[in-house]
Amino acid sequence: MNLIGFLRGLARLVAGRPRIPRSLSDNEALLRVLERRSIRKFHDRDLGDDEWQAILEAGRLAPSTVNLQTWSFSHFTRDEWSDTFDRPLPMGAPRAVIVLADTHRARRVVEGFPEVPLCDFTVGVMNASLAAMNMTSAAEALGVGSVMLSETGKTGFYDAAELSTTLALPPGVVPIMTVIFGWPREAPVMPPKLPLDAVAFPGRYCETPQPVLDAWYEQMQAGYRASTGQAFQRQIDLYNRRLAEAETDLQRMVMDTETDPR
Amino acid sequence: MNLIGFLRGLARLVAGRPRIPRSLSDNEALLRVLERRSIRKFHDRDLGDDEWQAILEAGRLAPSTVNLQTWSFSHFTRDEWSDTFDRPLPMGAPRAVIVLADTHRARRVVEGFPEVPLCDFTVGVMNASLAAMNMTSAAEALGVGSVMLSETGKTGFYDAAELSTTLALPPGVVPIMTVIFGWPREAPVMPPKLPLDAVAFPGRYCETPQPVLDAWYEQMQAGYRASTGQAFQRQIDLYNRRLAEAETDLQRMVMDTETDPR
Repeated sequence: MNLIGFLRGLARLVAGRPRIPRSLSDNEALLRVLERRSIRKFHDRDLGDDEWQAILEAGRLAPSTVNLQTWSFSHFTRDEWSDTFDRPLPMGAPRAVIVLADTHRARRVVEGFPEVPLCDFTVGVMNASLAAMNMTSAAEALGVGSVMLSETGKTGFYDAAELSTTLALPPGVVPIMTVIFGWPREAPVMPPKLPLDAVAFPGRYCETPQPVLDAWYEQMQAGYRASTGQAFQRQIDLYNRRLAEAETDLQRMVMDTETDPR
Repeated sequence: MNLIGFLRGLARLVAGRPRIPRSLSDNEALLRVLERRSIRKFHDRDLGDDEWQAILEAGRLAPSTVNLQTWSFSHFTRDEWSDTFDRPLPMGAPRAVIVLADTHRARRVVEGFPEVPLCDFTVGVMNASLAAMNMTSAAEALGVGSVMLSETGKTGFYDAAELSTTLALPPGVVPIMTVIFGWPREAPVMPPKLPLDAVAFPGRYCETPQPVLDAWYEQMQAGYRASTGQAFQRQIDLYNRRLAEAETDLQRMVMDTETDPR
């Protein structure tokens, strides 16, 4: 390995780990944020009522555009999940929240909103995602593991149309992800992350250099093969096949305001 | 005041405060999540390099769909902001990040993605919002205050078209909010939050009872008048006037893939 190859390898390694300034390295709350990892293996044991309450509370208290709280949380125990979906809760987790972008509720009380379907949806997805992250952070503080699912088990925006029927969602309510929660049964390594200067820049947009992108994607493929034994492209192809259908469903649900009796 | 009125008032008060189970009330990291408040008044003093680094790092390390990291962070000091926008950074904050939903970067390296503009946008907004919340949580851990702006100072999705020009954004990159950061110069009360059972339910969608919605909205209006001296509806009307224009811009930027040379 030549010097450039060595330095590049080192840079990759550094990019894949939290960079915590030494002056802040004893800040427990900061470490919880920077060292959070998605968990995909869970112990059988259920969460306690207090943990569950605190996690949902973090969703309720997330920030939102004009404090309009454009979200809803459809929550499940293992039994409730299998009763509803006729299959087990993914990855053996004991609890789940289907996070819903919900501008329907605010429209029932705030006067004079014009019909702006894409703005509605943007605000809904944005705020519901803030709530999802806040629930995840509260879980992390409690030692509870979680992962956000967009596809597995038919529970994310890929499956918006099906979920809309199953959960009897009114127009203006769109499922965007499922977060599953439980006690972690693994301590996974950080997946390959782009270096900070590839995603952050002062002011005007800065294109990530192609070699950095290529190096990152190489790592993604290698990491995926190492952890699953399968080709990453195969997983991507699977998503791609389902994306065209998801696009049609989503455009109908989001943009077709004529079906909305609001 | 009759008993029902008293109980309802009490319920409102409780809904507006974090409900922290007693068994978890000594968990510092949890308290940071549940007691976070948006800050709109800042001290003049700048953040240190270490704080700033840690906040951006929390954005970089947020979870994302298939780890695709579909975000970019355009960051600013006070001087960089006024040089770029010809006006001061809002609310006297010393630092800002314009959070960008960015599927442009991933499309440069991941092969075979079909043209699915609304799915792209959904994934972009979702992940960028997760990153925004994570940056805010890291800030909170450091005692740094922040607020997410969707309109003030022309820096959110309301101003996507203008920002797109100013920041030279390629197609597939859409600004969704600006987060401003600084040392808090206020300790604001919690704005009125809907009670947990109005936003969270087991399984099927559950409509919030109209009296709960009305009571909440009454509080919103009263709170807004108390803190600004103005009618809340006036602020809503201001947003509404701008929403039609924002909708046109956003639909063009998101849905019009013919202009996208990818």
